[in-house]
Amino acid sequence: MHRALVLTKYPDEYQRLIEAEQLPELELCATADVADGLARAGDSDVVLGDPARVVQALPHLTRLQWVQLSWAGVEPMLDPALRRDYVLTNIRGVFGPLMSEYVFGYLLAHERKIVPRLEAQREGRWDTTLPGTLQGKTIGLVGVGSIGAHLAATAQHFGMQVRGFTRSSEDCADVDTYFHGADKAAFASGLDYLVAVLPNTQGTRRIVDAVMLEALLPHAVVVNAGRGDTLDLDALVGALNAGRLAAAVLDVFPEEPLPADHVLWRTPRVYITSHTAAPSFPADIVSVFADNYRRFARGEDLAHRVDFEKGY
Amino acid sequence: MHRALVLTKYPDEYQRLIEAEQLPELELCATADVADGLARAGDSDVVLGDPARVVQALPHLTRLQWVQLSWAGVEPMLDPALRRDYVLTNIRGVFGPLMSEYVFGYLLAHERKIVPRLEAQREGRWDTTLPGTLQGKTIGLVGVGSIGAHLAATAQHFGMQVRGFTRSSEDCADVDTYFHGADKAAFASGLDYLVAVLPNTQGTRRIVDAVMLEALLPHAVVVNAGRGDTLDLDALVGALNAGRLAAAVLDVFPEEPLPADHVLWRTPRVYITSHTAAPSFPADIVSVFADNYRRFARGEDLAHRVDFEKGY
Repeated sequence: MHRALVLTKYPDEYQRLIEAEQLPELELCATADVADGLARAGDSDVVLGDPARVVQALPHLTRLQWVQLSWAGVEPMLDPALRRDYVLTNIRGVFGPLMSEYVFGYLLAHERKIVPRLEAQREGRWDTTLPGTLQGKTIGLVGVGSIGAHLAATAQHFGMQVRGFTRSSEDCADVDTYFHGADKAAFASGLDYLVAVLPNTQGTRRIVDAVMLEALLPHAVVVNAGRGDTLDLDALVGALNAGRLAAAVLDVFPEEPLPADHVLWRTPRVYITSHTAAPSFPADIVSVFADNYRRFARGEDLAHRVDFEKGY
Repeated sequence: MHRALVLTKYPDEYQRLIEAEQLPELELCATADVADGLARAGDSDVVLGDPARVVQALPHLTRLQWVQLSWAGVEPMLDPALRRDYVLTNIRGVFGPLMSEYVFGYLLAHERKIVPRLEAQREGRWDTTLPGTLQGKTIGLVGVGSIGAHLAATAQHFGMQVRGFTRSSEDCADVDTYFHGADKAAFASGLDYLVAVLPNTQGTRRIVDAVMLEALLPHAVVVNAGRGDTLDLDALVGALNAGRLAAAVLDVFPEEPLPADHVLWRTPRVYITSHTAAPSFPADIVSVFADNYRRFARGEDLAHRVDFEKGY
């Protein structure tokens, strides 16, 4: 018999979804309250949950063998002060489609002028302002992991040119041209859209810097949906205030929630989406968990295992 | 030598684009003013233009052989009082990608809650309301011509189920299930999105009626981007006022511009996009015209020829 402790904001939904999977030999305790979970199921060998709750429980779990995170991001688990005597798996592969909906939702809203058109309508104006189009535009992806690959496929569907900026990989067929390392200005030069979706790897701090931002077309739109520290916010705010960018769509920030006195709340043409770009829908997470649990129960290797040293 | 009269709101852009094509044996006169065009080039054998201007010029063109419309819609040219002693061609094939951008721009804006999220931001709120997703949702297309086929492909890319309502055709592989004729309620039952993009054929008046609208899911969104008279507006306004639809996105209307006193301006959850869904971008139109002109100059059959009797 295995015992799983599920630490999540949505315990009832997880309980229902996991029970529907009819997993063998599994006792379940789902709760939003870490102390409650430890009191009732501190001897669990399996934990499923979001990093913030799992980190709190981690030192107190007496029989821990495996943690399945409900997120892609694993940083909180990599703190050297934390134990590493268990198998850690995260969520991969389910966020590409969601991230395509997020990014192309905002790209299309921008081209189609959805917000200004609605404002015209509220004034009773028949507004025949021509829309723009994604066709023939160039998008640059900073980071081409599984999420970037899905974005590249969506961009191709809409008739865009696709550039990729990666450390070294060049394995996505939907990217037309690759750039690396010092080629920042060449990568960004002529881009209509720059979209940062870096996976959780090292060495990505402020990759999107003044050099990249200054090379963009003056009507370009910048999207950051990866990690908050990928983007040099001072350089971005400077570019927006100088009128050198059409807009910035920001989902992630160095500090979240974004502090109430942060300059971004008062910077023009910024869309703040409050870390909602690719939420962990319970049905998606439980599907990954159930697949991995069946492997675990059979003693097989788990999918999406995280290497504590590499950090991904 | 051939002579082309170009009647358009954007004569300078058309002139520049056509000259760049370096078409053989062609004299060009581009103007927004029909009387000016007739005075300077009334003996043209070729006319390129929008229907409203071309209809005015039609009786006065002494050597007319061919009219290339810059639109898909040909109704104004079909008036039995007008001459038919020339070859009429329209624009097809370029509107599918534009219509996908329009429809999915609004579908994604709806799922991602772009407008309410922006309102929260303007109040300084960190708004973590979960977005919806297109994945697993069902879209119903009323009309599956070349535009509907492109919408179906885009819907498949976003992981949707696709239904098609057509007179009889079933030739688009991206449509999962087809419905015809009296199957209106079966077609609409369970749809999350109903999108009307009927081509310019007969017998489509008020196809989207109370029967279809009442069968939709209560959170459904209705989009009309085909012809204004496809949709029973009274039934739509009734459904919206009764809270039975999440929203309606309307590009076309029985009378355009939509009259200032029309009830739609005051109906909740309506997006009025003022016939901008699939504009005739000059570059696209000139590309079609140049290809057809080369055929014309060689004495070959023209592409996208309209049959005056069939009306398409």
